[in-house]
Amino acid sequence: MSTLDQIAKLSGFSKATVSRVLNGSRHVSPDTRKKILAIMKEQDYVPNRNAISLSKGRTQQIGMITMNLNELILHFMNGFVESAGRHGFQTIIYTTGGDSQKELQALEDLKRKRVDGLLILTSVSSPGLIASYRKYGPIVSWQRMDHPDIPSVAMNQFEGYALALEHLLTRGYTRIANAFGRPSSINTQSRREAYEQAMAAYSLPVDEQWYYSSIYSIADGERVLRSLMEQQNRPEAILCANDLVAAGIVSEARRQGLGVPENLAIVGFDDTELAKTMGITTVRNPVAGQAENAFRLLAPALLGKALALQPLAFSLAIRETT
Amino acid sequence: MSTLDQIAKLSGFSKATVSRVLNGSRHVSPDTRKKILAIMKEQDYVPNRNAISLSKGRTQQIGMITMNLNELILHFMNGFVESAGRHGFQTIIYTTGGDSQKELQALEDLKRKRVDGLLILTSVSSPGLIASYRKYGPIVSWQRMDHPDIPSVAMNQFEGYALALEHLLTRGYTRIANAFGRPSSINTQSRREAYEQAMAAYSLPVDEQWYYSSIYSIADGERVLRSLMEQQNRPEAILCANDLVAAGIVSEARRQGLGVPENLAIVGFDDTELAKTMGITTVRNPVAGQAENAFRLLAPALLGKALALQPLAFSLAIRETT
Repeated sequence: MSTLDQIAKLSGFSKATVSRVLNGSRHVSPDTRKKILAIMKEQDYVPNRNAISLSKGRTQQIGMITMNLNELILHFMNGFVESAGRHGFQTIIYTTGGDSQKELQALEDLKRKRVDGLLILTSVSSPGLIASYRKYGPIVSWQRMDHPDIPSVAMNQFEGYALALEHLLTRGYTRIANAFGRPSSINTQSRREAYEQAMAAYSLPVDEQWYYSSIYSIADGERVLRSLMEQQNRPEAILCANDLVAAGIVSEARRQGLGVPENLAIVGFDDTELAKTMGITTVRNPVAGQAENAFRLLAPALLGKALALQPLAFSLAIRETT
Repeated sequence: MSTLDQIAKLSGFSKATVSRVLNGSRHVSPDTRKKILAIMKEQDYVPNRNAISLSKGRTQQIGMITMNLNELILHFMNGFVESAGRHGFQTIIYTTGGDSQKELQALEDLKRKRVDGLLILTSVSSPGLIASYRKYGPIVSWQRMDHPDIPSVAMNQFEGYALALEHLLTRGYTRIANAFGRPSSINTQSRREAYEQAMAAYSLPVDEQWYYSSIYSIADGERVLRSLMEQQNRPEAILCANDLVAAGIVSEARRQGLGVPENLAIVGFDDTELAKTMGITTVRNPVAGQAENAFRLLAPALLGKALALQPLAFSLAIRETT
């Protein structure tokens, strides 16, 4: 692979002139441009993006901060990497394990222009600290931030959960359990609210015995099903924090010989591949759309133009488990 | 959050002295150290890792290059992020979409000391080009590289595939189809070899009609099953490139009312959560162990000491689909 120096030497023009051709500057005569481009082609020259970005004050890289990696985050990442890629931006993912020092390093990378913008998927840093870096470049988040300077593409899970509840209630299920995730999360609070409102609307009692929490994985779902099997007063349906939990409950029910949905209806959340494959009724979470919107929120600063946000909504995928 | 300047001002010592305390230098009196540490604590001072890393010529960051993100890669990434994290290193993931220019940017980041080492999961760059960056820092790969300067943690899939074949053949299956991935990949070649050797060992014919290729996803697996249903001369068993494909075949067989394993035995590869949940017989691929070994291969350069590699082997997880 040739370097800029070699192209300059071979063409007989200065590095500055070669560089102007690369950057599409108008201050080069058409004839010079033609000669230099011909030599670049002949030499199979690959421009070094770092050299270009230095001259433009840009890296064409967007940093993405995440505490951990899981299937849902993978889905979001893939959507974002694709959206950013379409506009010529590379995504660099900072894994932090929830270490505020590592998050700070990513924020400092924005300050030092190592990245042109930041997308926060999940973080432990205070919104105030994050917002203090807004002066160095655009920052958006997936996680809800509740800070005026950090736009977020988070959706209110109340809506999605309410859809799932309405579906179960109109099918006549009244004894409905909940497998929640992190008890203190805004999502869990929204789901609880949706549950309590729906039960009230149908004049049904809220039984806190049917609030499971810190349920995240397939193994957690299997455990929940085994614990349900030992109860005398068993629910007829269960709403899950995500599709993994639902998959665990479905597969354990199959092993224990419990009929789904006759004896237990099961609803997941997110509509992952897993839910499709296992035929699980679930709430479609437009994650790829949120990722696309995250890029669009960065667009004014990165592209110098605004891109309209896509309208997004939860919907229901009704399959064999309800 | 306080800055180094503030700590210097408040303590009455120079920035250089405060910096020496931060870096654990011995050239500071115990009394001075005590005073400065007390003020840092009082001010809730978070040292800026960039400042530290500049002084040490280290970033404590390892770059990971990947063309795309999928479940298996996620599994590897999680293993690596954890191994690296235990030794104080943050992992930064460069997504490239198979763009050689973006790979080059990551390689250049090693040269410019933005990362201390590189791990290549999948790339399109030539091993020669990658190896030319070895002088700037350690580089290891997951993908097979076949280059003396780039150690790889790739395992020969021949071994794993041979285990699966032996399992099917000893159970009496003789008409065995293959759902391969990328036709030109070293993995596919190794699997074909394993297949042809096993069939020869059992004096069975090799029927190329049962070589499916470019089969990667759940949807691909569903399509393969539908195509099998239309064949007169149907195989009794099918070996899949990964668990996603196997899951697609299993779920489509269920929909079409084809008995598994009575009418069709199915074996996956990797032993992902999906295979466990759906009860699919599969080959255990020690991906987390490979990730741990990848870090250990970087250790001499990063930690100044060698760490012994873990011995790894494929094994079989026999479940309900065989």
